[in-house]
Amino acid sequence: MAETTSILIKDTTIISDEIEKSSVLVVDDTIQEISNSLNDNDAEIIIDGSNKITMPGLINTHSHVAMTLLRGVGDDQSLQTWLEEYIWPKEANLNDELVYLGSKLAMAEMIKTGTTTFNDMYFFMEETAKAVDESGMRAVLGYGMIDLFDDEKMKSELKESEKLIKNCHQTCENRVSVAVAPHAPYTCSEELLIKSKELASKHDLKLHIHVSETKKEVNDIKNNTGKTPFEYLDSIGVLDSNTIAAHGVWPTDDEMNIIKEKQVSIAHNPSSNMKLASGIAPITKYLENGVNVGIGTDGVSSNNNLDMFSEMKLTAFLQKVNTLNPQVLPTKDTFKMATKNGAQALGINAGSLEEGKLADIILVDTLVPHMTPVRNALSNIIYSSLGTDVDTVICNGKILLENKELKTINEQEIIQQVNEKAFEL
Amino acid sequence: MAETTSILIKDTTIISDEIEKSSVLVVDDTIQEISNSLNDNDAEIIIDGSNKITMPGLINTHSHVAMTLLRGVGDDQSLQTWLEEYIWPKEANLNDELVYLGSKLAMAEMIKTGTTTFNDMYFFMEETAKAVDESGMRAVLGYGMIDLFDDEKMKSELKESEKLIKNCHQTCENRVSVAVAPHAPYTCSEELLIKSKELASKHDLKLHIHVSETKKEVNDIKNNTGKTPFEYLDSIGVLDSNTIAAHGVWPTDDEMNIIKEKQVSIAHNPSSNMKLASGIAPITKYLENGVNVGIGTDGVSSNNNLDMFSEMKLTAFLQKVNTLNPQVLPTKDTFKMATKNGAQALGINAGSLEEGKLADIILVDTLVPHMTPVRNALSNIIYSSLGTDVDTVICNGKILLENKELKTINEQEIIQQVNEKAFEL
Repeated sequence: MAETTSILIKDTTIISDEIEKSSVLVVDDTIQEISNSLNDNDAEIIIDGSNKITMPGLINTHSHVAMTLLRGVGDDQSLQTWLEEYIWPKEANLNDELVYLGSKLAMAEMIKTGTTTFNDMYFFMEETAKAVDESGMRAVLGYGMIDLFDDEKMKSELKESEKLIKNCHQTCENRVSVAVAPHAPYTCSEELLIKSKELASKHDLKLHIHVSETKKEVNDIKNNTGKTPFEYLDSIGVLDSNTIAAHGVWPTDDEMNIIKEKQVSIAHNPSSNMKLASGIAPITKYLENGVNVGIGTDGVSSNNNLDMFSEMKLTAFLQKVNTLNPQVLPTKDTFKMATKNGAQALGINAGSLEEGKLADIILVDTLVPHMTPVRNALSNIIYSSLGTDVDTVICNGKILLENKELKTINEQEIIQQVNEKAFEL
Repeated sequence: MAETTSILIKDTTIISDEIEKSSVLVVDDTIQEISNSLNDNDAEIIIDGSNKITMPGLINTHSHVAMTLLRGVGDDQSLQTWLEEYIWPKEANLNDELVYLGSKLAMAEMIKTGTTTFNDMYFFMEETAKAVDESGMRAVLGYGMIDLFDDEKMKSELKESEKLIKNCHQTCENRVSVAVAPHAPYTCSEELLIKSKELASKHDLKLHIHVSETKKEVNDIKNNTGKTPFEYLDSIGVLDSNTIAAHGVWPTDDEMNIIKEKQVSIAHNPSSNMKLASGIAPITKYLENGVNVGIGTDGVSSNNNLDMFSEMKLTAFLQKVNTLNPQVLPTKDTFKMATKNGAQALGINAGSLEEGKLADIILVDTLVPHMTPVRNALSNIIYSSLGTDVDTVICNGKILLENKELKTINEQEIIQQVNEKAFEL
């Protein structure tokens, strides 16, 4: 990791709340100043920002990053078949080394496509924390608890979460925080869900859970509890402003009201919902109701990559075609979802370029054919860019990518290691 | 353009009808042999195909390439507003120089993202032909005729088409052919549509037309003719196996039967249909009916790029979520749409890697994080890759892209020229 304390991004096109031409000064981990009067004497490292778009690092609000190892497994199947016949049997063979490798590969991919923060739920999470430490990214990490209604399993799952909290919460210069992550209402007992919320409240942590992903889930929960998924979770006290609910594809009007009143954040995963044919989440309705919605990639084998630029474009496109109204999800709203809303969901002081915010910043190259001309920088970011246009990534004030080259990860080494090991699964 | 007569792509992963490890020998403009026994003595140029996926060049079946100049114009508007208030006023200022520049920029983008052939409808098409000549791509070019029911305009539009046929059909070593391109049933008089078909038949040309893009169009045509768009076109004899109908979003069952019986090819444009909120074309139904469906990008300002890899992914995703069936549009079918079906629609001897086919071939780099591991090369192409993973492009036996560097276009020069001129519009 570069050992710098100040960076000046000079003469650049900034997209944050507005689009402006200016320069950005980073000191330590913070954006200290945004101004046109900054000059080369103000910083140790100078980055030429002309012909580049400078914007907040993207925030992936729902992922299972080590699933990079399972890229291409079980394509073109329904969620249940995909999980039960393809993914879970392979995941049974996971170990700490594999999760470390898969996480590291994911971070290489995420950094190269402009993501600085991700919200992850998976297994062997201390290995993912180790990879976050080394990569320089920011993450919220939760151990994915599944008890399948077994009392002993419930206890051991909670212990795993407690261990992760103890060992990893607020570590890596505060870049890592821990969330409590019961997998879903259909894989966790009521007691596990209640105790998860107690654990989260005790440590003031986020609670990350899959909710209302498929019609089948909604029907199953209704059959078992007499309630819809969000109603059920609300009835047992799980929902509040610290909840990040992944998917939220099938909310009823009553559930929409609960989500709004309890200030639950939704993590929308358009690629995953489309690929698994889970359904189209009513994002425009959520936004009309003032619900905070972020964007996520979900795991790689229901996507099959971690490119948040694709997810932004898909988010906008899917709402437009589904409502038959091209005016919904204009570029500004989509951009906010992938940046500011994500930061709000995860409770981090980032997601916009403002003085005093954490220095999580990316620069996007505009001197490529598919970004020419730049009539509107925000339009080009949402509709024209590809993740690989990201040229520079700064997270927590450190440079992680420079001229498209990873500074904290040996890219070809990790690719080779994954190619050697992934097929053990 | 490289002056070579033979190229060997060695030890590569080939995706065509099947996935196989082999080598490919190109002699002049043709794939001469695919075999594991080829060696370095067989060709003048040797390309190391290991760690690369070798596949047919992608075929964009519906574009208006010079609209790269209008990238970012009129986002988040309906088709009618977008055309009437944003696009047409700017297009009124087009001239030959601008269309040449916009076409050249588009070709830089298309080659870099793996497209070797495109089917274009626009204005000043001799300029686009000139850019095709220089770039080395393959194209079907049609002058977009719009008479708005004016008799004089009809005659002058037909003359423009005749001129284009005379000057450009089967030129550029046969890489350019001309299509007759009446814009749409709502912008062309019945007489223009009939005479267009006569002109196409006289010269044995393709006929390229927008049909059934929006609900509004369907209603307007019904009000004016008493028929749905495909019924109307069929009733005046426009439809046959030489017709390429762009969009086809709203076919009735009767229209589906007409399309099938007349062997019309459909050019599906998922990004454009989503961004303009035109609707979701019933691609799975078309395929079930044996209709030939290719994929297109449409123009840049309803997309906003020309990346066919994104279009493949979107094609599959959109059908899965719309039918709530993840098994529809499996990777093989999507791949075929962007390659073989496109070639069939345009009547070119390409779209698959087989001995005797034209040498339109691309190589995709797999040694990047988001393509690792390669459990299934086809899955990685459809779901994981980004257009910028394309490393090498061969069209008509000539190398147009080598190690991601354009060989026939000065990329930075064209970007600079467009940045200087595009804002004249």
